[in-house]
Amino acid sequence: MPSGSATGAVVLLSGGLDSTTVLALAAAAGRDTYALSFRYGQRHEVELECARRQAHRLGARAHEIVDLGHIAPLVAAATSLVRGSPLTVPRDGVPGAGPIPSTYVPARNTLFLAYALAWAEALGAREIWLGVNALDYSGYPDCRPEFIAAFQHLADLATRAGVEGRSIVLQTPLLQMTKAQIVAAGRGQGVDYADTVSCYDPTVQGDRVLACGRCDSCQLRRQGFVQAGVADPTCYVTEP
Amino acid sequence: MPSGSATGAVVLLSGGLDSTTVLALAAAAGRDTYALSFRYGQRHEVELECARRQAHRLGARAHEIVDLGHIAPLVAAATSLVRGSPLTVPRDGVPGAGPIPSTYVPARNTLFLAYALAWAEALGAREIWLGVNALDYSGYPDCRPEFIAAFQHLADLATRAGVEGRSIVLQTPLLQMTKAQIVAAGRGQGVDYADTVSCYDPTVQGDRVLACGRCDSCQLRRQGFVQAGVADPTCYVTEP
Repeated sequence: MPSGSATGAVVLLSGGLDSTTVLALAAAAGRDTYALSFRYGQRHEVELECARRQAHRLGARAHEIVDLGHIAPLVAAATSLVRGSPLTVPRDGVPGAGPIPSTYVPARNTLFLAYALAWAEALGAREIWLGVNALDYSGYPDCRPEFIAAFQHLADLATRAGVEGRSIVLQTPLLQMTKAQIVAAGRGQGVDYADTVSCYDPTVQGDRVLACGRCDSCQLRRQGFVQAGVADPTCYVTEP
Repeated sequence: MPSGSATGAVVLLSGGLDSTTVLALAAAAGRDTYALSFRYGQRHEVELECARRQAHRLGARAHEIVDLGHIAPLVAAATSLVRGSPLTVPRDGVPGAGPIPSTYVPARNTLFLAYALAWAEALGAREIWLGVNALDYSGYPDCRPEFIAAFQHLADLATRAGVEGRSIVLQTPLLQMTKAQIVAAGRGQGVDYADTVSCYDPTVQGDRVLACGRCDSCQLRRQGFVQAGVADPTCYVTEP
């Protein structure tokens, strides 16, 4: 990081509504942002194209896409023995949520944050921003506030930076926000939500991405626009 | 994991003395072992060949080498801005230890354990074994008992397994052992230490690997054999 610059911040950026909002909020807070995305065999890979454009649009100093392709066979091989995650194992439809949604990917956020921590420390960045929020943590175990607190504790112990008193701080501005509040906050920063993908099962037609409108993520997103009183720019396979 | 089998355990295996001992101890304890190694641009990559042979020799049910090659440029790019780690950035010699050794790699064990956790959960394995020990934690922050405890806490919160009461347990049998005790324990299980590499800066001559004999790791290892009263099978560049 050039000396004298603003605080550096690694931002986890999936290209969805939440993480794009977080990138906009970090930039608005004056951070030098370093966007970090992952390719892990997810079916909704078109979101990475959104991530690329949003990182550029929102002035990230760098955008890295880490290819976790090697973990897909690892998980898939295990899957033949036990159950896998439908986010990485192609099959028809995206099932509805149980107590923990079946779209759960083993240790995903732990892995994403481990990479973010490594990059942040190497960069000398002092923060990691991520878009976990209250509407998710009812389901995914690794989106809950106690998970975030546990990772913060780990990060302080795990790194030279933490041991030497330069803690790398997790910033989770969406944690206690509703989807409507997130939409309103992002709109306040001029976020172009038409170029974000939240759907777990999108249909790609040429340059257009059509959301399924049925999966949990689509339903939460749609409800957010409605409750925020903002026109929903999402293109759905079947318009509501 | 086939039903009715022994407890499955992911074992972090670098191909060095400590992790090879841990693999032997896990097997001796009746675990079905799944060995996990990483290629991350380390200069001592010959240890991966040792890992491959040891995994086979010690009866691991599978051995995965995860290629973290993509993180090397990430860290290297950051390095051009700040300081890097000499384990991944080629330069002459391996410096001596400060309060935190300069061979520290940002968040390395956090990243390794995140992968182990993902694989363990996907496999349905109930344990992760790793070879951190008392002789390391004076230096690397991510080898200390408090780091291990923090990761255990994180793992219990991060995973479906943890939330559902099937905690994935970190096993660190070497934590309170001296290097001499480790050597003795491994010998008791018939470990072939001639086929392990601990040196941070080995010289490869055809099929032979010559340890430098000077780096911290070489010195700890050599001292361990002396104190255990076991002949040191290591080939050094300059015999002592």
